[in-house]
Amino acid sequence: MADVTRLVEQARAGGPRAVARLISLVEGASPQLREVMAALAPLAGGAYVVGLTGSPGVGKSTSTSALVSAYRRRGKRVGVLAVDPSSPFSGGALLGDRVRMSEHASDPGVYIRSMATRGHLGGLSWAAPQAIRVLDAAGCDVVLVETVGVGQSEVDIASEADTTVVLLAPGMGDGIQAAKAGILEIGDVYVVNKADRDGADATARELNHMLGLGEARKPGDWRPPIVKTVAARGEGTDEVVEALEKHRAWMEENGVLAERRAARVAHEIERIAVTALRSRIGDLRGGRDVGALAARVLDGSLDPYTAADELVAGLTAGA
Amino acid sequence: MADVTRLVEQARAGGPRAVARLISLVEGASPQLREVMAALAPLAGGAYVVGLTGSPGVGKSTSTSALVSAYRRRGKRVGVLAVDPSSPFSGGALLGDRVRMSEHASDPGVYIRSMATRGHLGGLSWAAPQAIRVLDAAGCDVVLVETVGVGQSEVDIASEADTTVVLLAPGMGDGIQAAKAGILEIGDVYVVNKADRDGADATARELNHMLGLGEARKPGDWRPPIVKTVAARGEGTDEVVEALEKHRAWMEENGVLAERRAARVAHEIERIAVTALRSRIGDLRGGRDVGALAARVLDGSLDPYTAADELVAGLTAGA
Repeated sequence: MADVTRLVEQARAGGPRAVARLISLVEGASPQLREVMAALAPLAGGAYVVGLTGSPGVGKSTSTSALVSAYRRRGKRVGVLAVDPSSPFSGGALLGDRVRMSEHASDPGVYIRSMATRGHLGGLSWAAPQAIRVLDAAGCDVVLVETVGVGQSEVDIASEADTTVVLLAPGMGDGIQAAKAGILEIGDVYVVNKADRDGADATARELNHMLGLGEARKPGDWRPPIVKTVAARGEGTDEVVEALEKHRAWMEENGVLAERRAARVAHEIERIAVTALRSRIGDLRGGRDVGALAARVLDGSLDPYTAADELVAGLTAGA
Repeated sequence: MADVTRLVEQARAGGPRAVARLISLVEGASPQLREVMAALAPLAGGAYVVGLTGSPGVGKSTSTSALVSAYRRRGKRVGVLAVDPSSPFSGGALLGDRVRMSEHASDPGVYIRSMATRGHLGGLSWAAPQAIRVLDAAGCDVVLVETVGVGQSEVDIASEADTTVVLLAPGMGDGIQAAKAGILEIGDVYVVNKADRDGADATARELNHMLGLGEARKPGDWRPPIVKTVAARGEGTDEVVEALEKHRAWMEENGVLAERRAARVAHEIERIAVTALRSRIGDLRGGRDVGALAARVLDGSLDPYTAADELVAGLTAGA
C-alpha cells in the first residue's frame, strides 16, 4: 500500500513521481482512491482548468504544447491531461502524437499525463476529474485538458473546464461539422490554427458569422474571441493566453467561475453516487435479479420500466 | 391523453400515424410512456434489428435506403430509425440527408423515423430502445438503426442491434481511424461503399488484414464478411442482405441471438433503473442536498467520494 500522506507531501513539493503515482491511484480506482481524494480535498481549488478540444488534425497537441511554453514563460506551473479516444473494449490508446510534448518532458514545472477514454459512458475518461484534482492539489497554476472533439467528449470537457478552447483549422469543412457537433455552443475561446494556410481567413469569418447568428447578448455578456495561430511556430499563442486570462477575469467579475465550479462539483458528486448505485444493482445477488427480469421482458410478460421498478425497489429496500 | 390501446391496435394494423404517435409518446418521456411500454411488451420480439454505423460521408443514408428497397423486394416490413448527432444543448438535428429516404416515404410497408441524440449520456438517443420496441411491436420484420459512427454511438448501436454493419468508403483514411474508434471490434458485417471509386480494393484489403490481426477464432466462430457496394446504384445491396441473413442464421444456431438480446434487455432495465435513481438524487429536497455537498467540496472540507456516500445514504434510507 502506498503511503498516501507522504505521496501528497512529495507532490506538493514538486515531485513528479509522486504526482504520477497519485494519478495512477485515482485512475485505477484502487482501494486507496478514497484515501487519496480525502487527502487532496483541502489542497485543491487553486488551479485554472482549461479544456482544449477540436477535430482530429487541427493541431491540438501542438497547440497544447505551445500553450505550455507560454505559461512556463510566465512562471506558471502547468499540468497537462491528454485524453485520448480509444477502444472501449481494448482500453488501448494511440498515443503517437504525445511525442510532440517531449520538449517539456524534462521541465520540472510541467506534468504531462495521457489518459485513455474508457467505459460505457464514453467521452472524457471517468477518471479525468480526479486526475485534474491531483494536478490542482500538486500546485499546478494551470491545468490543460486536451481531448479530441468527437461526439460526446467536447461536451464533457466543457463541463470539466473553467474555460473551453475550441480549435479549428482551415479547409476541413469545419463549418457544417462544427454546427453538427455543437461546438459552437461550448467554446469560450476559438482558435483557428494553421493560420498560414489557405482558407484561414475564410474559416475565421465563417466562424465569426456563425457565432453571431441568433446573437442576443446583453451588455457584459461574453463574446467568444477568435484567435488565429500557427502553433507549430508558436505564433499567436500569447494572444490565446491573453484571451484565456480575459475570460477568467470576466468569469471572476461576474460570479461565473464560482457558478461553473459549483455545477461541476455537483455533477461529479452525482456521478460518483450513480456509479455506486449502479454497482449495487450489478451486485444484487450476483446479477441474478437483472437476468431474471430480462428473461421476463424477453418473453413479453413484463415491460422494461416495470422491471426497472422492481430492481429499484429491491435496491432501496436495503441490502 | 392518447388512447394507448387503440393506438397500439392501429399500429399493429399498419397505421403509420399510430406508429409515429407511439414513438412520440415514448421519445418524449410522456406520462404515458409506461402505459405504452406495458401495452407493447407482449407484442415485441419479432423484429430483426440491424445497426448501421460509419463515419460521416461513407453513404449511410444511401446504404440504408438501398437496404430498405432490398428488404421490400423480399416482402418484408421495414422500420428505419435514423439517429442524428445534434447539439446536446439545442436538441436540434440536421436532417438534410433524410430527404434521400423520400423514395420510401409513400410506401406503407416502411416506417422512417429520425431521432436526435440528446442528453449527457450521449451516443445513441436514450429513447432509441423504446422506439425500436414500437417498430418491433408494430410488426416490422426488420428494423434498421442508422447512426453516425463517432465516439460513443457506434458502441451504443452495437449494444442495441442484433447485427451491426460498419460502413467504410475508400480514401477516407479509414484504416487508422477505424482502429482508433474501435469499430473493428463491433462489426458483424463490413461494407465498403462507393466501391466504384479509386482505393476501394485497397480499403477492403486493409480492412481484411486488420480483421485478421490477432485472429484466434475457433471453428464455427463468425468471421465478419466484407461486402463491396455502390449503394447509390443499389449495387451489392443483395449481397449485404445475404450477409445479414447468414449472420442471423449463425447467431440462431449458436444461441448468440438469445444471448445478445438478453444482455441488451438487461442493460436497458439497468439503464432505466439508474435514470430513476439519478432523478431521485436530483429531487432530494429540490437538489439542495447536492448543492450543499458541492459547496463543502469546493471549500475543501469534504471530498467528492464522501459527499457521494452521504447522497446515497440519504437516498436508500427511503423517501
